[in-house]
Amino acid sequence: MNIAVVLFDDFETLDVFGPVEVFGRLTDKYSIKFYSQHGGEIKNRHGVSIITERLDEINGDLEIFIIPGGYGTRKEVYNIMLIDKIKELSLCSKFVMTVCTGSALLARTGLLDGKQATSNKRAFAWAKTNSEKVIWDNKARWTTDEKYYTSSGVSAGIDMSLGFLSDRFGIEFARQVADEIEYIWTEDKDNDTFTAQV
Amino acid sequence: MNIAVVLFDDFETLDVFGPVEVFGRLTDKYSIKFYSQHGGEIKNRHGVSIITERLDEINGDLEIFIIPGGYGTRKEVYNIMLIDKIKELSLCSKFVMTVCTGSALLARTGLLDGKQATSNKRAFAWAKTNSEKVIWDNKARWTTDEKYYTSSGVSAGIDMSLGFLSDRFGIEFARQVADEIEYIWTEDKDNDTFTAQV
Repeated sequence: MNIAVVLFDDFETLDVFGPVEVFGRLTDKYSIKFYSQHGGEIKNRHGVSIITERLDEINGDLEIFIIPGGYGTRKEVYNIMLIDKIKELSLCSKFVMTVCTGSALLARTGLLDGKQATSNKRAFAWAKTNSEKVIWDNKARWTTDEKYYTSSGVSAGIDMSLGFLSDRFGIEFARQVADEIEYIWTEDKDNDTFTAQV
Repeated sequence: MNIAVVLFDDFETLDVFGPVEVFGRLTDKYSIKFYSQHGGEIKNRHGVSIITERLDEINGDLEIFIIPGGYGTRKEVYNIMLIDKIKELSLCSKFVMTVCTGSALLARTGLLDGKQATSNKRAFAWAKTNSEKVIWDNKARWTTDEKYYTSSGVSAGIDMSLGFLSDRFGIEFARQVADEIEYIWTEDKDNDTFTAQV
């Protein structure tokens, strides 16, 4: 099953590599590739530099399309070409996952209209400005609404990824993966320690 | 303050990007670069591909030298040239940090002789085989002994990095960073949930 991660300059490191750690280790199930609007090297302010293919090069249906957050989203929400491409690929994906302010990018496509979503609790007020039609949940660690999974900030992407595995393969399987990466998993998606003051 | 991360094929994704998330966001304090024995593209089985410089190109003293773990360590513990280079750079670094089975590589240098260290609890028995002279601690989330910090598996690298910030800048500062990345920090380094059955 193919997973595509969309990158853009100034993505948040752990938004990407939390889920990549969880799904990446399941080599018998998932194959992960990194993409960006124009392909090539994508950097962030943490000193990370990743080689990507162009989003146009994605062939076939995706099992999961992952959209991270980070400072870069502040700019990319106005990148109409990228938002259109995210919409097109989200429609062709079995599941769509956002981490942190990645939900702001997905909200801009209109695909979250009338659906539950969350975001980084520290950037929640800003995330909400990207769509009044989304049912923004400021208490969730992560949300699920039909095929859309959205998580709170940074490390919450790990919790959501484990939650996704739990939904697909059972909670014991997800607990086993959490155990393998020695991660203390917040199993309850509705109960975030870092509740938004909004 | 410069941080260098040494990469090798089949490094563990989160071993690297957990600490990179923690230190990377402190752009007023730290600058992170990625290195490998021969430079160029380094890949792992999670589909991650990182561009690195050669370890020989490191100029000047390092504040922190980070050594991740992963399947690749099984092979690299026999790579004498790499172990020698890790030893040389560790000696020139103010602090040395290992995540997961990265401690096996550092143990091979002899620099951990007579010092406390830990490793991934699932690979603990193997890690121990790399040196009988290390005081292996199978209960710690992470250990500190002089300038050497070693953490348990994968996500424990995040706890150790926050612990390092706590040691340098105070626990309130570390808690603030944990809060920013919405991470539930295990503050007690001596108390790992994932205790080794060894």
